[in-house]
Amino acid sequence: MTITAYAAFEPGGKLKPFEYDPGPLGRDEVEIAVEHCGICHSDLSMLNNEWGISEYPFVPGHEVIGTVAARGENVGHLDLGQRVGLGWHAGYCMTCGSCMSGDHNLCATAAGTIVGRHGGFADKVRAQAASVVPLPGIIEGAFAGPLFCGGITVFNPMEQFGLRPTDTVGVIGIGGLGHLALQFARAWGCKVTAFTSSTGKHNEALRLGAHDTINSREAEALEAAAGRFDLIIATVNVKLDWNAYLNTLKPKGRLHLVGATLEPLDLSIFPMLMGQRSVSSSPVGSPAAINRMLDFSARHGIRPVTEHYRFDQANEAMARLESGQARYRIVLSH
Amino acid sequence: MTITAYAAFEPGGKLKPFEYDPGPLGRDEVEIAVEHCGICHSDLSMLNNEWGISEYPFVPGHEVIGTVAARGENVGHLDLGQRVGLGWHAGYCMTCGSCMSGDHNLCATAAGTIVGRHGGFADKVRAQAASVVPLPGIIEGAFAGPLFCGGITVFNPMEQFGLRPTDTVGVIGIGGLGHLALQFARAWGCKVTAFTSSTGKHNEALRLGAHDTINSREAEALEAAAGRFDLIIATVNVKLDWNAYLNTLKPKGRLHLVGATLEPLDLSIFPMLMGQRSVSSSPVGSPAAINRMLDFSARHGIRPVTEHYRFDQANEAMARLESGQARYRIVLSH
Repeated sequence: MTITAYAAFEPGGKLKPFEYDPGPLGRDEVEIAVEHCGICHSDLSMLNNEWGISEYPFVPGHEVIGTVAARGENVGHLDLGQRVGLGWHAGYCMTCGSCMSGDHNLCATAAGTIVGRHGGFADKVRAQAASVVPLPGIIEGAFAGPLFCGGITVFNPMEQFGLRPTDTVGVIGIGGLGHLALQFARAWGCKVTAFTSSTGKHNEALRLGAHDTINSREAEALEAAAGRFDLIIATVNVKLDWNAYLNTLKPKGRLHLVGATLEPLDLSIFPMLMGQRSVSSSPVGSPAAINRMLDFSARHGIRPVTEHYRFDQANEAMARLESGQARYRIVLSH
Repeated sequence: MTITAYAAFEPGGKLKPFEYDPGPLGRDEVEIAVEHCGICHSDLSMLNNEWGISEYPFVPGHEVIGTVAARGENVGHLDLGQRVGLGWHAGYCMTCGSCMSGDHNLCATAAGTIVGRHGGFADKVRAQAASVVPLPGIIEGAFAGPLFCGGITVFNPMEQFGLRPTDTVGVIGIGGLGHLALQFARAWGCKVTAFTSSTGKHNEALRLGAHDTINSREAEALEAAAGRFDLIIATVNVKLDWNAYLNTLKPKGRLHLVGATLEPLDLSIFPMLMGQRSVSSSPVGSPAAINRMLDFSARHGIRPVTEHYRFDQANEAMARLESGQARYRIVLSH
């Protein structure tokens, strides 16, 4: 058998039709018949080999929604035809301390769905069954993909660091991740502020769940917000004045960065020391956390705001992503 | 009445006898008859006006042990003659969110014992009674002072961040704070490693509670410790290769800095992101935390290793502190 995909054949190359033979299905694997696939900024970073770990032909796609088309002989917890999703990770060692503690997302040898593997810009994709998460019936497939990477990336720190409904949350960057963070934090019961440099996003941020917005280009506005937040989730991948944001945290507050910024965080110790503040980061979440996130999303009607393209428009969709104009997440469908 | 103290009259000046009239005792204050006073590196920083907030004549001393010699009319919870200690803070607003939550040490308007006030290098010192903590009978006064600033500074993060007895703790810098951190972490039930650049401190670190030591000057030794620690407490106030230390943390680990380093922490996001790691800092602890720390110290026989001078040898003692040779904390006594 063959899998029909879209691949780039060199760093930054256009996506072209690509067929490959995936070989025999592993005992612990499932094969997913792909219906939809969200596009994440890391698909673009990987396509361009920005992190130096890409292999070509490179098939993007790690926000996959589809149905179980085949399953390995050891797989009993997923049914043929069941609706599922696949995110950044397509496999875990299952035995390290992190895996054994339920923190599969922190497994040092976890396999990335598009790292040394072919992703979900395809008619089928394979993954270790443990990394594949059932989709609640109430969630529409065409809008579910972005939850599996962008969504869990901002949901996870809310769980991991014990965010309380009485807390005040700031979200920096209202894009693919940030527009979901606003929805999660609002449904979590929190007071929610959107930091955005785009005045055009003020009303949209309010519609997405923010109680108010702060224009992050105005130093005075940041100063006026001194001591306001228990948690700030920064979703941008550019360097900001992190010390100015530290000052907007309450005592014991946390600045949590989920964007992979290449520049060092030149943090000053004093605002951290005086207020017992923390700075942290995290990757996506574990399958168990994804499961809880989906359940929470279903209960609260949380849904990505999406733009839709067909898989054969993948290059157009990637260009749209790169333009930074997409509001807020792009999904490809067959 | 007058208080007889030792004061510097200019930045970096020698300490000379100094008398001042403290005025009427405040309703919420106590006057402590000073018996002993530890010396902290921040006494030296303040004497030299390194932080730009010193006032002269400057009386150092914020690790004070003595007895209650007088109390204001509102003070009912401390008895005349009761043995007490006074640390970095000599007063709190008592009504802000931090104070009302028991986090007096994070009160934005807390008064520093030697910031705009005269400290404990004196026969008497005054402070808001709420900031003065009774000393358990079993703790010898001559060895108690260093617990009130150096001790609580390293004990506090163990409490605040939920250190578990099953955790592995690293302590960077075996000096006034670090030698207490080793003792606390060992008594806490943890696996304890001392990072030290001084080979001469290897055996001393083991005696103080470390299970092993790592020579922090050996890059290979740091690399070999990858993924080992749940918590690292850095007690140094110089810039180290923080990213190398981040790599020695387990997933979910925390690098906690209690030294006031002036250089920015040029942290790389990737070791934080991949392992969901945190970097944080904190000041001293609240009076309630100091109380628990003293009880814990009494139960476990935790005691600073000290060198002793008389108050009239204060300049000699400060020079000894500045030399970096003191093992590990200096205490002045009358």
